[in-house]
Amino acid sequence: MSSFTHINQVFELIEDELNETEAAFSRYLGSDIALIPKIGEHIILSGGKRLRPALLILTCGMLGGNRKTGTLLAAAIEFIHTATLLHDDVVDEADMRRGLAAANTIWGNEASVLVGDFLFAMAFDLAVDLGSLATLKSLSTATRRLAEGEILELMKTADITTTEDDYIKIVDGKTAILMATACETGAIIAEVKPNLQEKMKEFGLYLGIAFQMIDDILDYSSCEEALGKTIGIDLEEGKVTLPLIHTLQQAQPEERERIEKIITADYVSRPDFDFVHELMKRYQSLEYTSRKADSYLKKAHAILNEIPGSLEREALHFITDYILNRDR
Amino acid sequence: MSSFTHINQVFELIEDELNETEAAFSRYLGSDIALIPKIGEHIILSGGKRLRPALLILTCGMLGGNRKTGTLLAAAIEFIHTATLLHDDVVDEADMRRGLAAANTIWGNEASVLVGDFLFAMAFDLAVDLGSLATLKSLSTATRRLAEGEILELMKTADITTTEDDYIKIVDGKTAILMATACETGAIIAEVKPNLQEKMKEFGLYLGIAFQMIDDILDYSSCEEALGKTIGIDLEEGKVTLPLIHTLQQAQPEERERIEKIITADYVSRPDFDFVHELMKRYQSLEYTSRKADSYLKKAHAILNEIPGSLEREALHFITDYILNRDR
Repeated sequence: MSSFTHINQVFELIEDELNETEAAFSRYLGSDIALIPKIGEHIILSGGKRLRPALLILTCGMLGGNRKTGTLLAAAIEFIHTATLLHDDVVDEADMRRGLAAANTIWGNEASVLVGDFLFAMAFDLAVDLGSLATLKSLSTATRRLAEGEILELMKTADITTTEDDYIKIVDGKTAILMATACETGAIIAEVKPNLQEKMKEFGLYLGIAFQMIDDILDYSSCEEALGKTIGIDLEEGKVTLPLIHTLQQAQPEERERIEKIITADYVSRPDFDFVHELMKRYQSLEYTSRKADSYLKKAHAILNEIPGSLEREALHFITDYILNRDR
Repeated sequence: MSSFTHINQVFELIEDELNETEAAFSRYLGSDIALIPKIGEHIILSGGKRLRPALLILTCGMLGGNRKTGTLLAAAIEFIHTATLLHDDVVDEADMRRGLAAANTIWGNEASVLVGDFLFAMAFDLAVDLGSLATLKSLSTATRRLAEGEILELMKTADITTTEDDYIKIVDGKTAILMATACETGAIIAEVKPNLQEKMKEFGLYLGIAFQMIDDILDYSSCEEALGKTIGIDLEEGKVTLPLIHTLQQAQPEERERIEKIITADYVSRPDFDFVHELMKRYQSLEYTSRKADSYLKKAHAILNEIPGSLEREALHFITDYILNRDR
């Protein structure tokens, strides 16, 4: 039996630590250059679930470390995450993010690029002050792989020959590696042996890949209200995600052709979207993606099960289940 | 008498080290994601004078260090410089850079943002591998102040109330701090005492501020061929640089009004440019800026003169004079 019945309880367990992380946001966003706290707070407060800070703090606690030692590093990782959101908005030319106007539509691409740069730099500045080269290596590698993942995604835009391998590489970078770093650095500050640090990094990777797969399912299956973004945005942006890759593999030549036309167009009409969505249902591509996500989460679970029981371990278990069971 | 009569001789002195730095560019730009070496090499090869690597390597040698120890760090700093150029192109919506098409006009803003991010990350990844926290601190602080300077510049766009203090703050970040870091880290790897590291940082700051002032003069005084960019681009982009700040301070109310109209317009006509340029001549604003640049270079010289003589010191002397005497 889990001690947790709702995701909020997980966050309550580490409320003090997360509050310290939030306090660090404001402290480090303070600058006499007014636009920095303004944009930074807009996007930091528009918020998210602080999933990466939670992963770091819980991993540290689970492995016998003092959870409080992770709060500043958690802020650094959330800064990197926020920076990538700002830069993504420029890349995707997004109008909305989590139901709020995207930063670039308010302040322009320029400000989004530069405040993103500031957040990247501040994350490293903060991490350098913490004085651990192992932690810095994890962060710098993650940031590099993040950029690589996003560049690969850009290159594969509207490319219907994108393979499942390409997709995994993209997802590894754009989503999974930063979660992996949150878990890995949580293990580093808990001062466990390198092979356990490596295992926790893998845990984060598996979790992150599953997380993105579910996100990509939701993009097709969910409705506008639930996610604060328009349905089928991946299709409109030419993102060839796993559900679509699977459909393309199963599709007849004339179906593939029509999908290619749709995905290269600037605008996706409702009938176009419905056509693709119907094919996905026929070929059970969302179920396929869901099974894949499941298999990654099972690997994540297996890693957790090797570690001695604790409230933090239960919390991490609960998070993985929660990710799998988001509304689909 | 200087051992140098031409800037090329300065670069010949450290040719081996610069070649190692160039080799590091290609090595670290290698990625199985094709767009990264493509864009990276386009902008790295379009090239520049490798001023920052030269400052680092010469400082290290001047202070008794082995110049070769600086080649990888020099590559990291040039990566950061290149990343800011890529992001600047997005911010400025530039069409040309050093006579070549700007990367964003070929590959789009998205690629410029993401490859810039990759270069930032790679710079830190490389610097982390070198294992010096002091060096990392210098780099992370510089990158943060770089972003701050650029953001302040963005906020002050077309703002005719911009003061000389604002201008110095902007220039400190966008140009001087990275040169300062090149010199500071050159001193760090030469393993000299902290107060000498600090002095070399100051040297780089003064040099960088003077460098930008001269650049801002050239933007008004130079012709298109010489710089590979259009004359008066600062005016068109609404950049309120020191020559313009000085003119605005001297100008009559109706002159200020017309300048404000010109600088807030999307397009600057030839007569508009000539109007501003004529005022600058009347109020001797370029001479004023030149005197300011001179005073910063004198401070830079004074620092060099405290250090025992060497070929490297002569080379740094020559660089400062060369900067002051670029065509105006």
